[in-house]
Amino acid sequence: MTLSKIKVIAFDADDTLWENEMLFRDAEERFCVLMKDFIDAETCNRRLFAMEMKNLSRYGYGIKPFILSLIEAALEFSEGKVSNHIIEQLIDLGKEMLEAPVVLLEGIEDSLKELSKKYRLVMVTKGDLLDQERKLLKSGLEPFFHHIEIVSDKTPRQYLKLIKHLDVEPSQFLMVGNSLKSDILPVLEVGAYGIHIPFRTTWEHEMVHEPVEHPKFKLLQHSSEMLSLL
Amino acid sequence: MTLSKIKVIAFDADDTLWENEMLFRDAEERFCVLMKDFIDAETCNRRLFAMEMKNLSRYGYGIKPFILSLIEAALEFSEGKVSNHIIEQLIDLGKEMLEAPVVLLEGIEDSLKELSKKYRLVMVTKGDLLDQERKLLKSGLEPFFHHIEIVSDKTPRQYLKLIKHLDVEPSQFLMVGNSLKSDILPVLEVGAYGIHIPFRTTWEHEMVHEPVEHPKFKLLQHSSEMLSLL
Repeated sequence: MTLSKIKVIAFDADDTLWENEMLFRDAEERFCVLMKDFIDAETCNRRLFAMEMKNLSRYGYGIKPFILSLIEAALEFSEGKVSNHIIEQLIDLGKEMLEAPVVLLEGIEDSLKELSKKYRLVMVTKGDLLDQERKLLKSGLEPFFHHIEIVSDKTPRQYLKLIKHLDVEPSQFLMVGNSLKSDILPVLEVGAYGIHIPFRTTWEHEMVHEPVEHPKFKLLQHSSEMLSLL
Repeated sequence: MTLSKIKVIAFDADDTLWENEMLFRDAEERFCVLMKDFIDAETCNRRLFAMEMKNLSRYGYGIKPFILSLIEAALEFSEGKVSNHIIEQLIDLGKEMLEAPVVLLEGIEDSLKELSKKYRLVMVTKGDLLDQERKLLKSGLEPFFHHIEIVSDKTPRQYLKLIKHLDVEPSQFLMVGNSLKSDILPVLEVGAYGIHIPFRTTWEHEMVHEPVEHPKFKLLQHSSEMLSLL
């Protein structure tokens, strides 16, 4: 893989720049503890995942949809017996998540600093704009990015629109992210480059099992490995 | 006011292209009916507004933040006595709002059709991307717009970023919207043009009382009046 012609490097945000999934997994665990009088932890986790999937196309991604799903799940799993006190705790949990500190992935700041000297960097996320802007600000990574692009979903069509909007060719565009399904496969499909840097936790919904063999694809363990490729 | 040099016309979406505020006002009314055993309608409305304001900087704009505020309000106004059945109805109300049909403002389609022949049109909204894309698709107005721009807030700084991003000068940018506070004043501040088309309902939070006298400002009653200006 040669990246000599790349003009724009787009980075996914959650679990590519900073930790995110852990926040949700921790919250799910806390939720299932709160629900322990009504449902065992394993069933709770399984049904909660189903609830999130059911609501995904309607609510989209992020903390607010997640909390709405938790509240709906609390009502449903308890068969209408959950206390107001628990619902209040779910509202508070959401606010706590929105205000959680941003934990950068190791070495990402140095990698971005180097890359931003030679390439236009953009952040591409399907999260909530307000939340992602806030995280970018808290992270201290803002100076390295030209701007944020928010997409409602990471499909080949959305990537093509984005690449056109950035005024480059697909062959000049590289996407870096932790999700094969969202960050890599649709990007390769439209003729652009993809670098996969897996995070230690990947949401079940994002799991794709096929290994990817493709001339425009590279699997790395750490963002710093990018520096020797470019 | 002469608009001969305008290159990009940006339209606010909610209550500029289609009805929106009514959906929220109706939902608030339904909420206060649901809460009638705990609080009178007038106090309910007043305290609900305060709750939304309190949560605005944390939650941002849109239906999901609104529903989270309704649930928090239900718990608080009832002093923890609200039934699960009512909370369930609030979750359902949110889903209903997300799926509400899009009601276009009178004549907007014809106005956009004409304008799109001569200008690059963009939609600029501080709503939720997923919801706004869905509404744009349902509205049938998508073909007239070059793309959607989502901003987390409509401040002078955000407009400057947007104008730079669109690769035009402030003096080539016109914003059209129903809110003086969000769509017009910050735009005039950065040297761009603003056309105010008031909607019959304006959210209390968006009210600004000063009349605007400015060479780059125009107040219109209907989008079709734009056609004779450009």
